Amino acid sequence: MSYIVGLGELMLRLSSLDSERLLQSAMLNATFGGVEANVCVSAARFGLNARYVTAFPDNALGRKAEELLLGQKVDTSCIVWKGKRLGLYFLDMGYDHRPSSVTYDREYSAISEISHADFDWDKIFYDAEYFHITGVTPGISESARELTIYAVKEAKKRNVKVSCDINYRKKLWKYGKNIWDVMPEIVEQSDILFANEYDAVKILGIKSDLDVDGVINDEEYTDLMERTIKKYNLSSVITTKREVKSSSYNIFSSKAIMNGKLYKSKKYDINNIVDRVGSGDAFVGGILSGLYLFDNPQDILEFATASSCIKHTIYGDWNITSKEEVISLMNSKGSGDVSR
Amino acid sequence: MSYIVGLGELMLRLSSLDSERLLQSAMLNATFGGVEANVCVSAARFGLNARYVTAFPDNALGRKAEELLLGQKVDTSCIVWKGKRLGLYFLDMGYDHRPSSVTYDREYSAISEISHADFDWDKIFYDAEYFHITGVTPGISESARELTIYAVKEAKKRNVKVSCDINYRKKLWKYGKNIWDVMPEIVEQSDILFANEYDAVKILGIKSDLDVDGVINDEEYTDLMERTIKKYNLSSVITTKREVKSSSYNIFSSKAIMNGKLYKSKKYDINNIVDRVGSGDAFVGGILSGLYLFDNPQDILEFATASSCIKHTIYGDWNITSKEEVISLMNSKGSGDVSR
Amino acid sequence: MSYIVGLGELMLRLSSLDSERLLQSAMLNATFGGVEANVCVSAARFGLNARYVTAFPDNALGRKAEELLLGQKVDTSCIVWKGKRLGLYFLDMGYDHRPSSVTYDREYSAISEISHADFDWDKIFYDAEYFHITGVTPGISESARELTIYAVKEAKKRNVKVSCDINYRKKLWKYGKNIWDVMPEIVEQSDILFANEYDAVKILGIKSDLDVDGVINDEEYTDLMERTIKKYNLSSVITTKREVKSSSYNIFSSKAIMNGKLYKSKKYDINNIVDRVGSGDAFVGGILSGLYLFDNPQDILEFATASSCIKHTIYGDWNITSKEEVISLMNSKGSGDVSR
Amino acid sequence: MSYIVGLGELMLRLSSLDSERLLQSAMLNATFGGVEANVCVSAARFGLNARYVTAFPDNALGRKAEELLLGQKVDTSCIVWKGKRLGLYFLDMGYDHRPSSVTYDREYSAISEISHADFDWDKIFYDAEYFHITGVTPGISESARELTIYAVKEAKKRNVKVSCDINYRKKLWKYGKNIWDVMPEIVEQSDILFANEYDAVKILGIKSDLDVDGVINDEEYTDLMERTIKKYNLSSVITTKREVKSSSYNIFSSKAIMNGKLYKSKKYDINNIVDRVGSGDAFVGGILSGLYLFDNPQDILEFATASSCIKHTIYGDWNITSKEEVISLMNSKGSGDVSR
Amino acid sequence: MSYIVGLGELMLRLSSLDSERLLQSAMLNATFGGVEANVCVSAARFGLNARYVTAFPDNALGRKAEELLLGQKVDTSCIVWKGKRLGLYFLDMGYDHRPSSVTYDREYSAISEISHADFDWDKIFYDAEYFHITGVTPGISESARELTIYAVKEAKKRNVKVSCDINYRKKLWKYGKNIWDVMPEIVEQSDILFANEYDAVKILGIKSDLDVDGVINDEEYTDLMERTIKKYNLSSVITTKREVKSSSYNIFSSKAIMNGKLYKSKKYDINNIVDRVGSGDAFVGGILSGLYLFDNPQDILEFATASSCIKHTIYGDWNITSKEEVISLMNSKGSGDVSR
Amino acid sequence: MSYIVGLGELMLRLSSLDSERLLQSAMLNATFGGVEANVCVSAARFGLNARYVTAFPDNALGRKAEELLLGQKVDTSCIVWKGKRLGLYFLDMGYDHRPSSVTYDREYSAISEISHADFDWDKIFYDAEYFHITGVTPGISESARELTIYAVKEAKKRNVKVSCDINYRKKLWKYGKNIWDVMPEIVEQSDILFANEYDAVKILGIKSDLDVDGVINDEEYTDLMERTIKKYNLSSVITTKREVKSSSYNIFSSKAIMNGKLYKSKKYDINNIVDRVGSGDAFVGGILSGLYLFDNPQDILEFATASSCIKHTIYGDWNITSKEEVISLMNSKGSGDVSR
Repeated sequence: MSYIVGLGELMLRLSSLDSERLLQSAMLNATFGGVEANVCVSAARFGLNARYVTAFPDNALGRKAEELLLGQKVDTSCIVWKGKRLGLYFLDMGYDHRPSSVTYDREYSAISEISHADFDWDKIFYDAEYFHITGVTPGISESARELTIYAVKEAKKRNVKVSCDINYRKKLWKYGKNIWDVMPEIVEQSDILFANEYDAVKILGIKSDLDVDGVINDEEYTDLMERTIKKYNLSSVITTKREVKSSSYNIFSSKAIMNGKLYKSKKYDINNIVDRVGSGDAFVGGILSGLYLFDNPQDILEFATASSCIKHTIYGDWNITSKEEVISLMNSKGSGDVSR
Repeated sequence: MSYIVGLGELMLRLSSLDSERLLQSAMLNATFGGVEANVCVSAARFGLNARYVTAFPDNALGRKAEELLLGQKVDTSCIVWKGKRLGLYFLDMGYDHRPSSVTYDREYSAISEISHADFDWDKIFYDAEYFHITGVTPGISESARELTIYAVKEAKKRNVKVSCDINYRKKLWKYGKNIWDVMPEIVEQSDILFANEYDAVKILGIKSDLDVDGVINDEEYTDLMERTIKKYNLSSVITTKREVKSSSYNIFSSKAIMNGKLYKSKKYDINNIVDRVGSGDAFVGGILSGLYLFDNPQDILEFATASSCIKHTIYGDWNITSKEEVISLMNSKGSGDVSR
Repeated sequence: MSYIVGLGELMLRLSSLDSERLLQSAMLNATFGGVEANVCVSAARFGLNARYVTAFPDNALGRKAEELLLGQKVDTSCIVWKGKRLGLYFLDMGYDHRPSSVTYDREYSAISEISHADFDWDKIFYDAEYFHITGVTPGISESARELTIYAVKEAKKRNVKVSCDINYRKKLWKYGKNIWDVMPEIVEQSDILFANEYDAVKILGIKSDLDVDGVINDEEYTDLMERTIKKYNLSSVITTKREVKSSSYNIFSSKAIMNGKLYKSKKYDINNIVDRVGSGDAFVGGILSGLYLFDNPQDILEFATASSCIKHTIYGDWNITSKEEVISLMNSKGSGDVSR
Repeated sequence: MSYIVGLGELMLRLSSLDSERLLQSAMLNATFGGVEANVCVSAARFGLNARYVTAFPDNALGRKAEELLLGQKVDTSCIVWKGKRLGLYFLDMGYDHRPSSVTYDREYSAISEISHADFDWDKIFYDAEYFHITGVTPGISESARELTIYAVKEAKKRNVKVSCDINYRKKLWKYGKNIWDVMPEIVEQSDILFANEYDAVKILGIKSDLDVDGVINDEEYTDLMERTIKKYNLSSVITTKREVKSSSYNIFSSKAIMNGKLYKSKKYDINNIVDRVGSGDAFVGGILSGLYLFDNPQDILEFATASSCIKHTIYGDWNITSKEEVISLMNSKGSGDVSR
Repeated sequence: MSYIVGLGELMLRLSSLDSERLLQSAMLNATFGGVEANVCVSAARFGLNARYVTAFPDNALGRKAEELLLGQKVDTSCIVWKGKRLGLYFLDMGYDHRPSSVTYDREYSAISEISHADFDWDKIFYDAEYFHITGVTPGISESARELTIYAVKEAKKRNVKVSCDINYRKKLWKYGKNIWDVMPEIVEQSDILFANEYDAVKILGIKSDLDVDGVINDEEYTDLMERTIKKYNLSSVITTKREVKSSSYNIFSSKAIMNGKLYKSKKYDINNIVDRVGSGDAFVGGILSGLYLFDNPQDILEFATASSCIKHTIYGDWNITSKEEVISLMNSKGSGDVSR
Repeated sequence: MSYIVGLGELMLRLSSLDSERLLQSAMLNATFGGVEANVCVSAARFGLNARYVTAFPDNALGRKAEELLLGQKVDTSCIVWKGKRLGLYFLDMGYDHRPSSVTYDREYSAISEISHADFDWDKIFYDAEYFHITGVTPGISESARELTIYAVKEAKKRNVKVSCDINYRKKLWKYGKNIWDVMPEIVEQSDILFANEYDAVKILGIKSDLDVDGVINDEEYTDLMERTIKKYNLSSVITTKREVKSSSYNIFSSKAIMNGKLYKSKKYDINNIVDRVGSGDAFVGGILSGLYLFDNPQDILEFATASSCIKHTIYGDWNITSKEEVISLMNSKGSGDVSR
């Protein structure tokens, strides 16, 4: 089986325990996460081959991160060991009406300072079918932006399909460029796009009078996304939909235009969210894996949505589940009976 | 006061903490549980005399199990100390749309290999009024099946009433017999039966065209259960009803045919389930205790339902509550105000 | 900025962890709380000056309590170090349909035995604008009752406005007086009153045929409270409203008569309560702070209600939040999106 | 087998975790302990019959204490359920050169206020051979002093042998009497005495010029203790010897005059003490059990010393070990090999 | 670099926390360990290629074990996924004068029932230089004995050197054979032998009048081991020496006859042992790695001894350290300064 | 009482729990520490006035650090809230023969980039008697070096005595200057110097043929330090002496030249070190406090040594003890008896 390759930043995440506020006690939970790595972990757990590319400092943090990736069966052989520090972030985990809040401490990280010349692109794309990239990496630093664009070109050169998740993080993009100046060039070379109405209009420059923060009907959605597909020559545009009742309660589903048709997943009432971080990546990992596992778009979308739904119940960025569990949920009427 | 006697298997339960997946961290929570022991603990906590009969290996696990039963005021004097190992199971505790999953490791356990000749039946049934038995024990092994049937006969010989919970576990019954071949013989000697529509039709051979996994109205239910009562010469048939929204959210109630009449409990919306395992046993313990505590069937059913409702909020198999707390819930309109 | 002064008892609270029952494991969580101290902490976190007055024994518990108050920027310089013990209480934290239960062990505490002569009232009320007092302190002991009334008079003497929260605790008031004999004298000297319909009728002697435990419409409420205001010469009467679905699920809002007009806050569905204890004090602290932060009563009420809503998600008596977080919630349509 | 009966106070012990200082984090470890109860637990674990007598308040703390005693197979049937509170103490567990420190909060406890008339002395001493009492109980309050003396007389009346441990606690004895005024009357009726040189001279009034805090040779020791035996008509005087290098490192042994002869145990270098509290009681429990298990005094003393040595490695007041483990240690040359 | 291959059983180890006794609280620590796997992990951490061969059941336990091995960079590609259960053991971790105690629950494990025909021996020994085997595996069951001997022959067939650790476990060998009947056949085909005086005389049949449990001088040792080498045609015999002061305090060193000469390592006073389990395997892993890393026997022995010394400070069976740390310790005069 | 002022960097310290290796589990312990802050905390706990000056970023970490300092009664009013990040370090806590290891991640911290112009020096030195500075701060960055020297000059201008601790950290000093180029200028303006033989010869340029890493006799020591005092016009030179047996076992004492005379403290065998980090600062804090508490140099030295000895038993950088506890240890013969 060919490989899914992801490139980006993996950070140490330091988060409060259970329902505590950050540093309410002296205990912190340390996991590792980053959008592209999370996608690779999902894909690997679903039985695909996944290769993650990044730069790690050669210290206790970098080595632990690699240990954990290896445990998930992600290929780490293209990681470059160079740089001074691993980016990190503090997560004050939200609960009910108290929202989660992220404090980034990721400047000067290994990935933010590395150059494309440090990587072996032939090795990276060896036997690769998909290359997954997001709007996070080019938001980190000027050199990370250059690295991203260089990587996408290297992928296309080798006929590797590009999957791009817009993933707009307002707390990034401080180095002088805006996301709307950068992403169009990347999306132009992409095949699969993860983007919602806001992204299409505000970042990718699709003209529209719609209120992109409001409710949009299926026709409006289809029209907007088909114009996006056309403009950027994409094969599909996919997005999750989330009605946020509180930090602990979301109504979750997804939509896609695939093969020129609108698909909508079933909706999940998620009342007792454990950890929402990484649920978007569990969705993306579900789509990329679903392309191998299923023939029809509806199944692919349902698989990815169920994958993401399960992620909401798992602590940490990674979706510690299996193909069997996800399929069981996507096929279930209810869910939650004890298997014994 | 006379005794409620239970016989069966007590296992070490190793479960994940909080919302973790099994072995996500290196910490496991070790409690002890088994359906009949759970019933005895409930009864003892509600002020009745309860005696639990099983076989324990004479090692650190068996001794700890006895220590904890003694702390609950369960009479352990008829436990036989013989056998190589205590059965155990790993519980990947479900959360929201992720279901719980049990991995049994109970083969070759002390109880699965012991013979009825190892027990002192006079001592076991001394001063006993009820003997509680389930469909779990005869599913463990051929010798456990024989032991169960032998025990039921010993009980009847001494005019001890038999309470039987079908408790069908699909992961058991691997030794060559099916539950529908075994349970009828046991139910024939029972007085009180815990069984639902599925059990009546599929296991106890009551003829019916009903869809036993679907919705059944009160008339259909009453008809089915009255035929069950008649066929097996029972005094009552009782069952819990559970609408599973997710692992964390169930709507819970119960139904019974007692004294030839249908009774239905109030319904509880249980939104934040802590631990559902053992909640059926907390219900059974509530019924058997209710028979002592109340005169009318509706009260007995409400007491048992409230007992089970509280169990959903308590970690571990045992219902760490009191008669007063259960009565307070069964009588409350709302619930949940702080008592201070 | 002038000071908000609170006087009362701070206790060590020993509570069960997570969803455990009290002493189910050997681990207890030790925090400190008391209604007036909780109010001071809220005020200090919202940027006001707050001074807390009490008596502490000079031992490890008293010193730890002071350390934690200092960390919250509460002025502890008027605390008197005298007395044998710190009061304490055990909290069996409720969950879902299992209610919380408090076991007090607060008799003979330092505050219950101290005399008004031990305090320096000039220092206590130096630069003070509000003095907050509750119905808890006079319920502790005869001398605490005397202390409370003495303190209120000292406040009035210095033109410090008095804020009084009825806070009826049925497990107190064992020393021979009833709350309805004591509170009227205190409320007479108050400016701001926190009381609901029950308090007005049953404790403050306002005549009414209303069912004070039932549903009361706005007109009835307004009439009752305006008569309370008139009788006791108050500036406002304020109360929280709580529909208790379970220990984990409350629908929460508030009402007030301020400037002769009825105000009602928005309602919060709080589905995943972490710790409800102290949420009333977070509301009071929100009102007293809101008086400084906002001009109009609706904003003050919304700020206090959002403050209390957040408190439900925080473990311990103290509302570990900030003015910014509370304002963000009071202005939000939904809530719970990750800020990153 | 006849019973060992202990009477005294059981307290809730709230101690810091691991090497933390008290309340350095918000976590406390809650166990139950009291000198006479600890002795009963040791005896019960060594296979003897043990009955513990005290007064418990009928609340969550009292009930948990009983549950744990029952788990240790201690007979709790003579406990009186009366009184307002369970005494408690905070333990700042020492480590290395930092000593442990106890903050008592035991005034007004159930046992300190109960009268001898509340107990059923015939039931208490039914089938009893030894009654164990210490200098702790009469130091609590005047009524506890009276209770102790009354109980000793009731024991003697029924020919139950009295075992008395001086156990001088300087933080007690605040109610107006001194230990040297009280203990002689109790020791006069005792058979076995646990006391060291200090106790003999300063509390029991044996005349001596020895420096009772210094080093005393065997002859001096023998002379002093034989005079004690003679004066009080005892069968034996026994004591532990402890060279305190630090909180974590003690050199531990014991001495006794039994049958008119001096016996000395082997010495244990205990370098990594986990919890020293209760080690004296584990010794006493070892002696009282040893009287049943062994014929010669040296074995009795070695058994008790090994029992106490093991206690130093066990967290909590109770000596969670077995007869087999203690015998294995008393017979070992080295110790500490893994048994696998 | 060529591979070190280990074959044996990996078990789930359930151990008590810190200084607790097993099940004193409900928390257990779950790690995975087995002598040959531990050796592979050490080798992999020291930079060698290591391949571990065993049988795992295809369940949550087997999959977690593989995840953790992969994280340690151990090649798991030859593991056979077959069998009903993973063996497990409970570890009551010793402390000071309280010894550790192991309760095995490993019967019917996957490895104990598998046949040599289930393995692909060409793949197993591909590119292998050493094959490590111990006396544990043939002690499990008759079929495991056959498997071990078959495997050794397959290794020799391919010119892979055999390293054998006697590792006598008295709690095994219950299936009808004794270790002294089995190991000679295995040692005959070995090159490197890990064995002490006891093993040589009692298991390998070397004639001697020495007290193998007592003190043996260098000449006696050398004579005994040279006769062992000669009889079995070995290249070296190596052993650790351990003076057990207590569970927490060992004096640790090692000895070897290599190239016909006696070598002795320096001695380590290990006063604060964290976890001794696996320290012998950390030594073996150190020797096998040392053969690659160093030229002279003294360095190899010092490296292995320092590796084992560090293992005593690490919780779990695996030696979570690095080549650099071990070399730093073997070269240090003292040890323990903070590197900052 | 006048103030002790400290200026430097406070970092978040993320350390492994108990005996775990860093990130062996996902749990980290988060405390705050920095050499000068640690000194201030000690002084404040001993009853002196202490003011800590630094720069904090205005985020969750800075605010928590201030909260904890306030709890220790350290004056934080001169802290400047400016800068992007709080420096942090990861501590792999050593155990026995495994040394502790620090991974710094402190570049670009608030204090490393701030200018002296951001501080209000009059406010900082208001009512100050001592200003404590170390060799850590000037090792961070060029601007931190400038800030240190500027601060020392501002102190001298106001007749504030300067206390300087050399505190050589090899992992710092990466910005282009060496410690021996920088510290002499600072020491020239100091009154009290904390330095050992190595520091004197290698950093402060005192000529000597002594082996500064070896054993030095009292005469040699006195001669060396008196020349240091003379060259730099100091009042005293003080140092701790540490014989490192392992990470868990140090023999600890101190030496000083004060008033022209050599003083030596008693020696402590510290066998069970909990946390050595900050013990040097606990010593410095003890000296500066001792100057207020005692008249003669021997007492000052013994107080500081006992303060540091206790710190070794306390987790975290701060010496959570009291004047009374330290005096009790300095006066004790043994130590470690339970106070009850």
